[in-house]
Amino acid sequence: MAERLYLDWNATTPLRAEAKAAMIAAMELVGNPSSVHAEGRAAKGLMERARADIAAALGADGADVVFTSGATEGAALALAGRGFACAAVEHDAVAAWCDASLLVTEAGAVQVLDPAQSCLQLANSETGVVQDLPQGLAVSDLTQGFGKLPIAFNWLGCDMGLVSAHKLGGPKGIGAVVLRQGLDLPAQLRGGGQEMGRRAGTENLIGIAGFAAAAKAAAQDLANGVWEEVAEIRNILDSALSAAASQTISVGKGASRLPNTLCVIAPGWRGETQVMAMDLAGFAVSAGSACSSGKVRASKVLRAMGFDEEAAAQAIRISIGPGVRKEDVLRFADQWTKAYQRALSRAA
Amino acid sequence: MAERLYLDWNATTPLRAEAKAAMIAAMELVGNPSSVHAEGRAAKGLMERARADIAAALGADGADVVFTSGATEGAALALAGRGFACAAVEHDAVAAWCDASLLVTEAGAVQVLDPAQSCLQLANSETGVVQDLPQGLAVSDLTQGFGKLPIAFNWLGCDMGLVSAHKLGGPKGIGAVVLRQGLDLPAQLRGGGQEMGRRAGTENLIGIAGFAAAAKAAAQDLANGVWEEVAEIRNILDSALSAAASQTISVGKGASRLPNTLCVIAPGWRGETQVMAMDLAGFAVSAGSACSSGKVRASKVLRAMGFDEEAAAQAIRISIGPGVRKEDVLRFADQWTKAYQRALSRAA
Repeated sequence: MAERLYLDWNATTPLRAEAKAAMIAAMELVGNPSSVHAEGRAAKGLMERARADIAAALGADGADVVFTSGATEGAALALAGRGFACAAVEHDAVAAWCDASLLVTEAGAVQVLDPAQSCLQLANSETGVVQDLPQGLAVSDLTQGFGKLPIAFNWLGCDMGLVSAHKLGGPKGIGAVVLRQGLDLPAQLRGGGQEMGRRAGTENLIGIAGFAAAAKAAAQDLANGVWEEVAEIRNILDSALSAAASQTISVGKGASRLPNTLCVIAPGWRGETQVMAMDLAGFAVSAGSACSSGKVRASKVLRAMGFDEEAAAQAIRISIGPGVRKEDVLRFADQWTKAYQRALSRAA
Repeated sequence: MAERLYLDWNATTPLRAEAKAAMIAAMELVGNPSSVHAEGRAAKGLMERARADIAAALGADGADVVFTSGATEGAALALAGRGFACAAVEHDAVAAWCDASLLVTEAGAVQVLDPAQSCLQLANSETGVVQDLPQGLAVSDLTQGFGKLPIAFNWLGCDMGLVSAHKLGGPKGIGAVVLRQGLDLPAQLRGGGQEMGRRAGTENLIGIAGFAAAAKAAAQDLANGVWEEVAEIRNILDSALSAAASQTISVGKGASRLPNTLCVIAPGWRGETQVMAMDLAGFAVSAGSACSSGKVRASKVLRAMGFDEEAAAQAIRISIGPGVRKEDVLRFADQWTKAYQRALSRAA
């Protein structure tokens, strides 16, 4: 039996070896970063070095980094109660706090009206479509872009960014809000004075160590051109799936996309069915975002791009990462094509 | 030079070997617990076994366990917007959401008026004083009690409890709200449908694995009488410090206390100065809770028990755990007594 192949990197990534090693090392530190004794100071030292490493990987030197339990908490911290506008292509954790009124073109581009009152993602988790962020933007969800695209937060022209470790090889359950130095950000979690009063609660020290190591390694990979190789493999997959049937749609193909993401609509074959068929064949892919998996409904993101309900319900996302090889994606394409033909012949 | 001695277990505990092993094992799981494919189901399986283990360790079989990033987030989830009453002895993360109007006796006992509208801690982090929880209590902060005292949540008679992993040998950054099955608990973090809609955000899987392993090991320790040995060592320390000077006050000595906690007031010697002197001598202790460390102010907890500003500013907390030996605490007592005498002679 062939080994299973994990092609759902936008849902979560395998933990990088660098992150694993940093986390195991951090397990030896006994102190609470808020304690004033030597053990506390050692924990705080690790945390502050991690904060600086993450800022550097984001091109955000000098900016503030506020640790959160992930991008969902980051979105609540940056957005709750502000009444910002966003588009329906945003992640549910962002849309929960915004007015999803902004229009989206067929190519997936969001039309921002008032940047200072808006939240716009850098890249979409389902389609990989990359947005052109306007200057003066209030908040950008950088979660899917961080580690896959070169980011210089200090030059993006936005006040705040949301990031999460587990999308770039770090552990789940740790993320951050990065923001222009000194910007006002009232705490939502209250109690202790951690994170300069912006987020109470003892910090996830082991997670933070893993996040920093992953961010540093991801920045190195980007500098080394690793993601250009990933894009080549993705493009091979894209061509193979498009060749499988004339009616197949590669979503966002004309737009700027994340190097690792492929969203394909297979007319006549429901996304959920595709995911289950491919899971049985040994491949992990998804229909829609992981957070809303299990709910049988058409993708909000594709609907916002103008696809009808039927087409939006026939999409799957294949998202890869460094180490996924050409032969891997060709094996997937072969199995997927056969399963698609079987599905169509059953329907006929 | 003598090895450093960590005596600040109520601030945070060393990571248990069982937790470390479980976390390293969880690092190999690649899936997102919300994903429907095999990798996702494996992650979800680990998470649900962990949830059951934590419930069992808490005597909360059948109750709901909602994972949070720690007790601070748990307090916000259980308390924000409810207008409950509490006493000033509660942790800041609880008091932030309550009306701190309940009276406290000199022995540290909180006088609850309306249990259904109140939050009361099981044990105090600074003094170790254990409360007698009234039936029908809305919320109890179990953080300092869990792992040190036998707890049967299902028999406590309270609706919700707050717990945190890093107080019982698990990692920092993971905790939970435990609640009577099916009780209403609207999400504060919104977006994905995780935690049965009560807390959005991809779960901290590695942290959860560590939490469960630590909780299981802690319950085993309790059953094996380990904490009775801890109490004996604490009592030896208590006697040694009380013998050092006639004016020394062992806070809460008459009350029921956590087995590991000793809060001592040393008249004429400020708590912060004690912490620094003992840190230089190789011992980690604290003045007040770690979350408010660094702020030079008298303990709110001691003020609520009727100690005056001066006495409340002269307290330190020594909190120990399994593995701290009689000779360790006697070494601390010897050094502390000498430093106290030096401090008093400088002041004279």
